[in-house]
Amino acid sequence: MSSVPAATADAPAAPRSHVRVELGARGYDIVIGPGLIDAAGEEIARRLPGVRAAIVTDTTVAGLHYERLSIALRAAGIDHVQIVVPPGETTKSFAQLTDVVDQIIGARLERGDVVIALGGGVIGDLAGFASAIVRRGMGFVQMPTTLLAQVDSSVGGKTGINSPRGKNLIGAFHQPALVLSDTALLDTLSPREFAAGYAEIAKMALIDRPDFFAWLDANREAIFTGGPERVESVRQSCIAKAAVVAADEREEGSRALLNLGHTFGHALEAAVGYDAKRLVHGEGVAIGTVLAHRFSAKLGLCLPADAERCEAHFAAVGLPTRISEIPGAPLDVATLMAGIGQDKKVRRGSLTFILTRGIGQAFIASDVAPAGVEAFLTEELTR
Amino acid sequence: MSSVPAATADAPAAPRSHVRVELGARGYDIVIGPGLIDAAGEEIARRLPGVRAAIVTDTTVAGLHYERLSIALRAAGIDHVQIVVPPGETTKSFAQLTDVVDQIIGARLERGDVVIALGGGVIGDLAGFASAIVRRGMGFVQMPTTLLAQVDSSVGGKTGINSPRGKNLIGAFHQPALVLSDTALLDTLSPREFAAGYAEIAKMALIDRPDFFAWLDANREAIFTGGPERVESVRQSCIAKAAVVAADEREEGSRALLNLGHTFGHALEAAVGYDAKRLVHGEGVAIGTVLAHRFSAKLGLCLPADAERCEAHFAAVGLPTRISEIPGAPLDVATLMAGIGQDKKVRRGSLTFILTRGIGQAFIASDVAPAGVEAFLTEELTR
Repeated sequence: MSSVPAATADAPAAPRSHVRVELGARGYDIVIGPGLIDAAGEEIARRLPGVRAAIVTDTTVAGLHYERLSIALRAAGIDHVQIVVPPGETTKSFAQLTDVVDQIIGARLERGDVVIALGGGVIGDLAGFASAIVRRGMGFVQMPTTLLAQVDSSVGGKTGINSPRGKNLIGAFHQPALVLSDTALLDTLSPREFAAGYAEIAKMALIDRPDFFAWLDANREAIFTGGPERVESVRQSCIAKAAVVAADEREEGSRALLNLGHTFGHALEAAVGYDAKRLVHGEGVAIGTVLAHRFSAKLGLCLPADAERCEAHFAAVGLPTRISEIPGAPLDVATLMAGIGQDKKVRRGSLTFILTRGIGQAFIASDVAPAGVEAFLTEELTR
Repeated sequence: MSSVPAATADAPAAPRSHVRVELGARGYDIVIGPGLIDAAGEEIARRLPGVRAAIVTDTTVAGLHYERLSIALRAAGIDHVQIVVPPGETTKSFAQLTDVVDQIIGARLERGDVVIALGGGVIGDLAGFASAIVRRGMGFVQMPTTLLAQVDSSVGGKTGINSPRGKNLIGAFHQPALVLSDTALLDTLSPREFAAGYAEIAKMALIDRPDFFAWLDANREAIFTGGPERVESVRQSCIAKAAVVAADEREEGSRALLNLGHTFGHALEAAVGYDAKRLVHGEGVAIGTVLAHRFSAKLGLCLPADAERCEAHFAAVGLPTRISEIPGAPLDVATLMAGIGQDKKVRRGSLTFILTRGIGQAFIASDVAPAGVEAFLTEELTR
């Protein structure tokens, strides 16, 4: 990838990097850097003068970061209220949405005010969806506190909740006005949670940036231990995602590439009932991305060596790569196939997958035969 | 209004009139005419080949019109399911939304399939909002069965539900792919319901079409008894509304003109607890529009004669024009002011009203003093 010059990995990243998401009137900045939370008030007030805010967060994140954010907002004269929800994927429900929406309206926020999502992907999706539907659309600021949210879910405007029938089946495209990614907050993540977020970085490289993947292969230890390589990996991921989003904001075509590993991954998450003790989203993406490469190799689309390189990369950072690594009762193929059939990416009954011709050469395959998928998964279940 | 030539009122309207809502890639047709429901299948299939459909309707409308629509869809090869909700404003709730969304997902409809709203404004708002959020946005077809829905709520993409804290505070802008207005279905309306719909036609004329208002003054009896004048009044209203929507799809400016009479009207509806026995939406709009004209006259913005002409027009078609005409316990000014304060059109704490300089000369006044409104309403309560 030409946008990752070798020099970048050696020089320290600037304290605050900016990535612009080019979406015309809906375009916005992603600001990245350590300690950014203390400057959140000035960053918001400069772009959105006079706003009031509702900060949506969960009990875990509130304890870690809320006071610092509140102080920063007060310093910039931003009046705000706090809305706290329970942590975890089950919070992405109609019941929690109803409650958050009611609290935003109860705080008498107006269309021009903002909802600030302080937390991981669950908080961003829930708060973003609430901001999309209160008064038919309010302002929205993402303050992602997990690696997964900083490199993936906070960028691109996808918001939503889960249906009892499937993940993310209910939602809206609603772009934030600003994304503030404080990379120092990632120090509070568990190694497992950090690795899960890293899965989305590797996935992004595997879509269409082979040079970025090579850079990740060379720098993965430094990314995990911290330092400028970590900031750079976040920045490059955001640049890559912003480019895909700008080309197809509402997922009518090429944006579906971001779902590399996700059709399999979502089916795995559904099969364990979204039980984070067994599988978190990034782990599902890691296994799913390996499955997408292995399925591509089985179909003769890419070399087996590409699938092996992909799997070795995920395994080296401690991520699961095989279905059989998921703890608990073994999964069965019928459950996985049902999860795949209900996936949002279904079109007119044919199965659509993101497959690949090699490292960084993913493409949208919209005519995949369900029988072939079923045979493949049957083999993979016992690998 | 030059687009209502005198000849139009004498010649029978064409069996099917078309109005185009110009919104670029989101543009769509409004088709108007008697008996259109029997052609619904071909109208949909021609524009959206291969779609499946979920028809959302209420128990009342289902009994009157569902079978005919189902036959028409079958004839065009459109596979469909029926989703029935209770009639009435209370159906615009999170609970009903959750249920409708679950049934749409349960029917395994995909992004390219359509939700058809068969009913009045409540059904259009609820079904449209459901279609906006299932899979982050599905296709949507409006089949309005009330006059109010045909001339107002089906056009322009506003969808939503009510919050316990206020009407339409939760929703989305989601344009339909097609609006099919069968004017013969209006024969099933009660006189009260027809008059309520007519209030939105008169409001539309009072915004910026003085010639249309004069035409309505001359033709109101024919509109109420039926015939080509009725079809023409629907068509002209849709043309007027489509022009406003095309100029400002997301209500960031001039579209707020459509709220003429609605700030007062919504406060009245809220004050009676959305009890349709006491006040339906169109009646609130009638009283609210008269109040907007009287308030404008009191402020010296328009002539008292304009306010009198406005009131005489609504009264002549049997609509209420005074707060004291609302049956039941008298309303009080504090309740009305609270309703106005929570209105969506609030900006940064100042009160925004649509006021007027005369018949067809409405404008957005964003700096109205709450004390002046309170004094005015105190007088009006006992008129």
